[in-house]
Amino acid sequence: MRIAVLGGDGFVGWPTSLHLSDLGHEVHIIDNLSRRWIDAELGVQSLTPMDSIQERCRIWHEVTGRKLHFHLLDIAQEYERLRGWLSETRPDAIIHFAEQRAAPYSMKTDRHKVYTVNNNVNATHNLLAALVETGIDAHLIHLGTMGVYGYSTVGAAIPEGYLEVGIETMDGRNVSQEILYPTRPGSVYHMTKSLDQILFQFYAQNDGLRITDLHQGIVWGTHTDQTRRHPQLINRFDYDGDYGTVLNRFLIQAAIGYPLTVHGTGGQTRAFIHIKDSVRCVELALGDAPKAGERVKIFNQMTETHRVRDLAEMVAQRAGGSVAYLPNPRKEAAENDLVVRNEQFLALGLEPTTLAEGLLDEIVEVARKFAHRIDRKRVPAVSAWTRELAKLVDTDPERTRLRSVS
Amino acid sequence: MRIAVLGGDGFVGWPTSLHLSDLGHEVHIIDNLSRRWIDAELGVQSLTPMDSIQERCRIWHEVTGRKLHFHLLDIAQEYERLRGWLSETRPDAIIHFAEQRAAPYSMKTDRHKVYTVNNNVNATHNLLAALVETGIDAHLIHLGTMGVYGYSTVGAAIPEGYLEVGIETMDGRNVSQEILYPTRPGSVYHMTKSLDQILFQFYAQNDGLRITDLHQGIVWGTHTDQTRRHPQLINRFDYDGDYGTVLNRFLIQAAIGYPLTVHGTGGQTRAFIHIKDSVRCVELALGDAPKAGERVKIFNQMTETHRVRDLAEMVAQRAGGSVAYLPNPRKEAAENDLVVRNEQFLALGLEPTTLAEGLLDEIVEVARKFAHRIDRKRVPAVSAWTRELAKLVDTDPERTRLRSVS
Ligand SMILES: NC(=O)c1ccc[n+]([C@@H]2O[C@H](COP(=O)([O-])OP(=O)(O)OC[C@H]3O[C@@H](n4cnc5c(N)ncnc54)[C@H](O)[C@@H]3O)[C@@H](O)[C@H]2O)c1
Ligand SMILES: NC(=O)c1ccc[n+]([C@@H]2O[C@H](COP(=O)([O-])OP(=O)(O)OC[C@H]3O[C@@H](n4cnc5c(N)ncnc54)[C@H](O)[C@@H]3O)[C@@H](O)[C@H]2O)c1
Repeated sequence: MRIAVLGGDGFVGWPTSLHLSDLGHEVHIIDNLSRRWIDAELGVQSLTPMDSIQERCRIWHEVTGRKLHFHLLDIAQEYERLRGWLSETRPDAIIHFAEQRAAPYSMKTDRHKVYTVNNNVNATHNLLAALVETGIDAHLIHLGTMGVYGYSTVGAAIPEGYLEVGIETMDGRNVSQEILYPTRPGSVYHMTKSLDQILFQFYAQNDGLRITDLHQGIVWGTHTDQTRRHPQLINRFDYDGDYGTVLNRFLIQAAIGYPLTVHGTGGQTRAFIHIKDSVRCVELALGDAPKAGERVKIFNQMTETHRVRDLAEMVAQRAGGSVAYLPNPRKEAAENDLVVRNEQFLALGLEPTTLAEGLLDEIVEVARKFAHRIDRKRVPAVSAWTRELAKLVDTDPERTRLRSVS
Repeated sequence: MRIAVLGGDGFVGWPTSLHLSDLGHEVHIIDNLSRRWIDAELGVQSLTPMDSIQERCRIWHEVTGRKLHFHLLDIAQEYERLRGWLSETRPDAIIHFAEQRAAPYSMKTDRHKVYTVNNNVNATHNLLAALVETGIDAHLIHLGTMGVYGYSTVGAAIPEGYLEVGIETMDGRNVSQEILYPTRPGSVYHMTKSLDQILFQFYAQNDGLRITDLHQGIVWGTHTDQTRRHPQLINRFDYDGDYGTVLNRFLIQAAIGYPLTVHGTGGQTRAFIHIKDSVRCVELALGDAPKAGERVKIFNQMTETHRVRDLAEMVAQRAGGSVAYLPNPRKEAAENDLVVRNEQFLALGLEPTTLAEGLLDEIVEVARKFAHRIDRKRVPAVSAWTRELAKLVDTDPERTRLRSVS
């Protein structure tokens, strides 16, 4: 297949591109490299030394003989070029990773909120409008998030995308209707994914676009079978307070002797998936496209759930380190349960990679190896959801150390 | 009160501005005049001769002694200027009309789709981000539409914004949860209003913004008590296939002896409200603001529903003319029932202006008076929802005439 990977220079997009190329597909990476610019803006860098995308593509070709095509293109800002590229290349499938993906970054300032909404909504909508206009019947696979449900989880298992509700009609009957599972996103970033869902619903219904939306949990890990093949194929690894996600962040904190920072009581339960499973899920979804006219296919792309404080205690025990409980800069329920259905991927053959398999040690190793590249001041999460919460945020690593000792 | 009317140069925004000014409020109109530019793009004009906004404000001052302040500002594209203006002016309330509002225009080409999403989502989101950033606790009143529900009406009365659904929990209990009434918009325009709802839900919840969303029916009529006070205060009146909405369009067609064009079987039921009631509803909503921390207040702003073909027959009988049944360029259910709750506005004192009150004649009169300004070629609706539907659209007024005779 000819596959376009939008956002293919990113943390999940890069190993996905390699995985699909390895399977023999013709892979085209489209990226505006905004994520590298954001590293520059924040004054941080990937824990792992990351070559330019052009260089990484060259190495992949050297190592495997396979070609990766890279196109510098902003899909949110350059509609005409996107449409032109699509009608020239006519991909069979499109994997869409190209969005600003950090909740804390999306809540930093008004500028970051405005950027995130503008970038993400236009990225997704431009793509949909261009597919309709060019008449290309590609299977579109989008990366969404479990986080869209946010506040709306009530101790029920989250089904894969849809909910049957009973509605009482005028003449007293009770009609059952299928609706998108109600969302109640907790950050501007998560909100944009909730907006995406409505865009998909419309274009599937009006234009018969074939769309799969993968509601992904937090991705952890760093290596896949392909990124391991050469040191310069190594994946990016975010550790900073904005882009570093919870499990990976704990592992790095443990590796460098920084207290594991838990927000609030750590009572939030989150869904997780290893990067190896994430790329495999995309492969499985590719083989299971909806037909034109069908509703959007929604998968929950996760393999396990954990309570944040349990994770912290587990990592602290295994890899060493202490746990520091800090005020939560996010506005969210202090404690929540989360049960997620993922039967669809299991039925398609996914074999989950779970936490207990030595992979934790592997990451701590990576972190130790590149520990000299870490700026400790960038580890704390400083983006607060509201002005009141901002007052609670303490950015001094030294005080964090003391707190965890006391 | 100091009130900002965003989109105050438009069909509903202008009479609302006059009404609020007349009540003694300090009114600031913000508009980028994009609607006037779209008239130029489409090569059409308001049926009624409309002066520049500056001239209209000058006349209002002359007639009433009251000042209207006009600011040329694009709220979707000029975030910094919007924020600056807000923090200088610090309005007590903001009425937000500033969106691209025609469903047919939003479906014309990919460029129009992209424009509509970009303009409407950024307009609303910029406003929300700027309110949080400036810390202005203004009551935000937004004009939404009944059309967000689209396909999702199932013979049940549409409640005012929310629905209680039962969700089965893991431990077998059935928990009731309140959700936004599920939407299933039928055009890109309607889709943007569904996106707006999610933006509002988030900012009310995260930042305590006080928001009222008015889900309005199709507005008909043209004069209000204030626009009547001087010929140059006359409201705009759209008759073209993109912006002319159904009842007003029938009345114009009747006035100029053009067949009343009904799409499909005309079996769609729509909700309506007269322009006089529309401006009154805004006044009522202003007096009934939600408190910080409360959910978004949603009103159904309509007074009656009618089936399109019944309306056509009624107008044809009253004002003369024939009815032509044309293929429907929209993708929608051929027949639908629509029952809408509007108890909230009735409880606040709204006294509905209904169809039977001689107002139809008034509009036919306006149409006859300015009939020489009508370009008959612009009357048919030519924007089609999909490529297949586009093949059915016939834009020749002569053939329409023959068809209605045969
Ligand atoms: N990493 C996770 O834990 C996780 C969890 C759930 C969902 N997701 C989703 O998966 C996707 C990929 O996540 P990631 O961790 O790889 O993020 P990332 O930031 O590392 O990668 C995103 C890539 O998209 C590019 N991009 C952004 N906007 C673009 C635009 N307008 N035009 C072209 N390219 C653009 C960026 O430059 C970057 O290379 C995202 O949509 C994210 O929301 C990620
Ligand atoms: N007219 C109806 O029947 C109807 C029905 C339901 C809901 N509504 C809603 O009511 C609102 C007003 O409708 P209308 O009929 O008066 O439409 P309109 O097009 O006549 O007025 C909208 C005004 O907003 C301005 N505008 C648009 N984008 C802007 C931007 N980015 N910055 C600044 N100004 C901008 C336009 O120039 C125009 O003057 C719309 O939001 C519409 O969706 C209208």
